[in-house]
Amino acid sequence: MFCSNCGAKLKMKIPEEDNRVRGVCDTCNTIHYENPKIIVGSVTTYKNRILLCRRAIEPKFGFWTLPAGYMELNESTSEGAMRETVEESGANITLKRLFAIHDLPFLNQVHIFFLAEMNSPKLDPGSETLEARLFAVNEIPWSDLAFKTVGKTLEFFIKKDRYNKDHVHTSLFSLGKKS
Amino acid sequence: MFCSNCGAKLKMKIPEEDNRVRGVCDTCNTIHYENPKIIVGSVTTYKNRILLCRRAIEPKFGFWTLPAGYMELNESTSEGAMRETVEESGANITLKRLFAIHDLPFLNQVHIFFLAEMNSPKLDPGSETLEARLFAVNEIPWSDLAFKTVGKTLEFFIKKDRYNKDHVHTSLFSLGKKS
Repeated sequence: MFCSNCGAKLKMKIPEEDNRVRGVCDTCNTIHYENPKIIVGSVTTYKNRILLCRRAIEPKFGFWTLPAGYMELNESTSEGAMRETVEESGANITLKRLFAIHDLPFLNQVHIFFLAEMNSPKLDPGSETLEARLFAVNEIPWSDLAFKTVGKTLEFFIKKDRYNKDHVHTSLFSLGKKS
Repeated sequence: MFCSNCGAKLKMKIPEEDNRVRGVCDTCNTIHYENPKIIVGSVTTYKNRILLCRRAIEPKFGFWTLPAGYMELNESTSEGAMRETVEESGANITLKRLFAIHDLPFLNQVHIFFLAEMNSPKLDPGSETLEARLFAVNEIPWSDLAFKTVGKTLEFFIKKDRYNKDHVHTSLFSLGKKS
C-alpha cells in the first residue's frame, strides 16, 4: 500500500495515541484511516406494488434488487437513496421516510433504506439495470433476490403494519447468518 | 494525489460508465472512490442523568460532548457506539436502541446515536477526555457543547416522551443552519 498524499510506501503500524493498525506514511506523516461505507436505497411503491430492478452489473448480474448503491460525497442519506432510485429505475418519486438500517460488519457496510412513492407508473431504467418492474407482494421473486438485506428489507416492509407507522427497522447480518 | 495500490500519480477524471470525477490510476487501473464516514455515539444515562465528556483533543478541546467517534472496520454501528462510549468515559453500559441519525453532507458525515444505560455510576475517562460527568437535564452546559449534532441529539432526548417509545429521530444539517 502507498500513501495517497505523497506516493511513498506505507507502514502498517499502530500510530501514537491509537489502538489500531493503520497505514502510516513516515515521509509526509499522514495516517490513512479506513472506515465502513454506506449503501443507500429505497422501498419504492406505486399503488401497493413494489419497485424492483434486475441488475445489469456484477455482482449478482440478472438478480432482482431494491434500487440502492454507495452513498456519494456531498449528499444526505435521503438524497443518495433518491438518486440511486432514479438512476436505476427512472422512476419519478417522492421520498417519504427512513425505514430500515442493516449492519454488515463483515463487509464493512451499513445499508440504509427509505420509503418512497412513485408519482406515476413510468419507468425508464438506467445502464445498471436490465429491467425495472412493479411487483405485488405475492409476486416478489424471493429466490432471485440479489442480496440478503434486500430480502430482509422486503420482509420488514410486508410486516410493517404490525409496527408504529414511523417505525425504523434495524438488523445485524453476520457471515452465513442474519439476526 | 497518488494511487494507494501502486504509488503512481492519479488522474482526476470521470471513469467509463460513471458520472462523477474520481481519482483514476492509469498504471494499475484502480478507481479510487471516496465516500461519507459514519460517526457513532450514545446518549448514556444513569438515574435520569446524562453522560457528557469534556474533550481532551482538538477540535473543540475543553468543550462537552456525547461520547462518539468514527465507526471502525469490522464493527456494527451499535458496537462502535458502545466502544466509543467505553473508551471516552470508562462507563460500564448496556446499549438500548437506535435513537437519532443526523446527515451532515457538507462534512461528508452521518452521525448515528444510540441510547444506553450505565450499570453503575463509576466513570474512568480515557486519554481523549479531560472529565466525564453526569448532568441533570437542567444542568446541561448548552453554550459549551462541542458540536451541533450533540445539542440536537440532547434536544431530541429531552423531548423524547412526546414520541413513540422507539422513535428514531432524524435531522439534516447544512452549512450555517440546521433543519
